[in-house]
Amino acid sequence: MDMNALDQYVKVVLVETSHPGNIGAAARAMKNMGLSRLVLVSPEDFPNEKAVFRAASAADLLASVEVYETLDDAIADCSLVVGTSARERRIPWPVVDPRQAAQEIGKVVNQKQGVAILFGRESKGLKNEELHQCHLHLNIPTSEVYSSLNLAMAVQVVAYELRLLNHDAIEPTEVWDQPLATSEELNHLFDHLETTLTEVKFHDPDNPRQLMTRLRRLFLRARPDQMEVNILRGFLKAVNQLSR
Amino acid sequence: MDMNALDQYVKVVLVETSHPGNIGAAARAMKNMGLSRLVLVSPEDFPNEKAVFRAASAADLLASVEVYETLDDAIADCSLVVGTSARERRIPWPVVDPRQAAQEIGKVVNQKQGVAILFGRESKGLKNEELHQCHLHLNIPTSEVYSSLNLAMAVQVVAYELRLLNHDAIEPTEVWDQPLATSEELNHLFDHLETTLTEVKFHDPDNPRQLMTRLRRLFLRARPDQMEVNILRGFLKAVNQLSR
Repeated sequence: MDMNALDQYVKVVLVETSHPGNIGAAARAMKNMGLSRLVLVSPEDFPNEKAVFRAASAADLLASVEVYETLDDAIADCSLVVGTSARERRIPWPVVDPRQAAQEIGKVVNQKQGVAILFGRESKGLKNEELHQCHLHLNIPTSEVYSSLNLAMAVQVVAYELRLLNHDAIEPTEVWDQPLATSEELNHLFDHLETTLTEVKFHDPDNPRQLMTRLRRLFLRARPDQMEVNILRGFLKAVNQLSR
Repeated sequence: MDMNALDQYVKVVLVETSHPGNIGAAARAMKNMGLSRLVLVSPEDFPNEKAVFRAASAADLLASVEVYETLDDAIADCSLVVGTSARERRIPWPVVDPRQAAQEIGKVVNQKQGVAILFGRESKGLKNEELHQCHLHLNIPTSEVYSSLNLAMAVQVVAYELRLLNHDAIEPTEVWDQPLATSEELNHLFDHLETTLTEVKFHDPDNPRQLMTRLRRLFLRARPDQMEVNILRGFLKAVNQLSR
């Protein structure tokens, strides 16, 4: 695995971080491991000199940071979205540990497609609707006695595992015939799907139960490519013409 | 590997740490990974409330910390001494990465013998005479551009690797909430899908191209569970009622 390729295609996305010191420490952890693309979604207190102090010699990452208001915008161009999560969910999602995550990320980078790794709020992590944007949930093994890792520490562990791709032989590139769909393309698909399910009266948005969550999980698991998304949307359009 | 045994026999030794915040952050990193034996050699500024603040819920490790004046005293009862080191040395020493170090440490713990892992000063690491006390030198892989890890981050990476001795790779299907669909159920789904695609005139069975093959590949990749198959077929039925 080429570390420069990893750096080119992987971004670390910190969602609604409270403490600027953690942003700086995360930047340092990234640069130590050869990563540079730091993205912030609605940080509470940034820029801030505490971030610069904790970043030490990684202040350049703070200078080039991308800041977005919404998670959707931050991950729109990514074909693999990995969300760190400590909690058990009511609807289980595909879960990987940092080592497995690094392998999966390596495969997508080998296809020259974008990856986002999401880290949630210090206090309560990622929200369910954010986790439902993710293809994979990443769980860092911890003690049951004290499972709450500091945010920058979590970034360090994941960045370290990515660094090791440099040393480990990873599985040969999966040869795929089509580019993977981006997060934005998938969200358009899910919107289209929900509209259509509603039109054919299979889905009631006022009583959604877990329908869209389950369908998201199903399709995200498959990591659809762009042609597959086009096929599904073509089918949905044909259904729309029937019902309108 | 029994995590309790690891905790019983492994101590983390911080040598002449300058910043009390790093001591606290190291304590938290240890407790997150199931370690509790923190040892300090001549800390510059300890105890200090900054250490307690950064330790968060690991303040108990600071309360039970052992403080020594000399490294010799700190490691006297240890059978394996591992010293973290970034630098190349004039006299080469056996060097391991964190993963290899965890394996070596595990072997000694299995023999119920003591292990010390040494972390040096923030500014200049361990001195040569301290490194010459070590059986193994531990080098954390880093970027050549910026190789100086924060002290507590280095503790986090090594503690994480020790934790993994105790951890089996996650198997997503083991925690799934629904039984996976059988091949027969999937074939019924694909038949139903093809009929429906034809009814809405998106698919022409006389000119199939690769449509069904691509849809099969998409859904098979996701390994649908039975509830997901039922949802998809419910949607298809709703479309059928519209078109018939």
